[in-house]
Amino acid sequence: MTTYLEDLAVGQRFGSGTAPVEIERIKSFAGEFDPQPFHLDEAAAKATMFEGLAASGWHTAALTMRLLVDGEFKPAGGIIGAGVEELRWPRPVRPGDTLRVESEILEIRPSKSRPQIGLVKVRNTTLNQHGDPVQIFVANLVVSRRPA
Amino acid sequence: MTTYLEDLAVGQRFGSGTAPVEIERIKSFAGEFDPQPFHLDEAAAKATMFEGLAASGWHTAALTMRLLVDGEFKPAGGIIGAGVEELRWPRPVRPGDTLRVESEILEIRPSKSRPQIGLVKVRNTTLNQHGDPVQIFVANLVVSRRPA
Repeated sequence: MTTYLEDLAVGQRFGSGTAPVEIERIKSFAGEFDPQPFHLDEAAAKATMFEGLAASGWHTAALTMRLLVDGEFKPAGGIIGAGVEELRWPRPVRPGDTLRVESEILEIRPSKSRPQIGLVKVRNTTLNQHGDPVQIFVANLVVSRRPA
Repeated sequence: MTTYLEDLAVGQRFGSGTAPVEIERIKSFAGEFDPQPFHLDEAAAKATMFEGLAASGWHTAALTMRLLVDGEFKPAGGIIGAGVEELRWPRPVRPGDTLRVESEILEIRPSKSRPQIGLVKVRNTTLNQHGDPVQIFVANLVVSRRPA
């Protein structure tokens, strides 16, 4: 079902499927986008503040986006970020972790200047297989209003 | 030269090299992490609010990270984000664009609880080949203090 701005309410929650985090993809993503020792090499990572190999935060963010696109929250027009208010990684994502996302609607604001859309603030919490948050991500999404 | 917390000052600026944005990588990144029509298919993208194919914001963020890792700002211990305060994409990144990053130190705060580190707030502005900002990204980085 397509979800328009009028179908949303503060406090609504949406879930996602799961995504495995494979060690080879941690390293290849980092090799392309974030080539630092703690994302590339187990032995070198042990000596860093990560105390072992960890996924790049941008890899976690990208995996989270995929879980959102495939997840329960299906706003009309797609998942389009107007901006991110908060993005942090409270603990490392490790090889072999399995991630999922829980989203909660925090605010709904119809646009004054653009009557066909609104902004929806959503907190997306990415959890590992132990239920521990690995990423907190608060974004404002552009959501279409129901056509008259 | 390795840069410690003590080597930094508010207002310092750092540059980067450049990164081309290739149409096939826009589509393959989106296929893996952000499979929405405006990132995957030129014709479908024309009918969306992007009015043409655009890179996923997470692709732009990942490319920006690579430019930062290879750029002029080389904090001791690497570029480690404690969290992002702001991340937005004021205009689309298009196939064929060439990106670079300008970074500016906004705040420097030695940690009270962890004497060996500090937090440095940095604004990273990703620009296209026309000098137009395509991503604004304000992050707090963990930076080591100079060993006594």
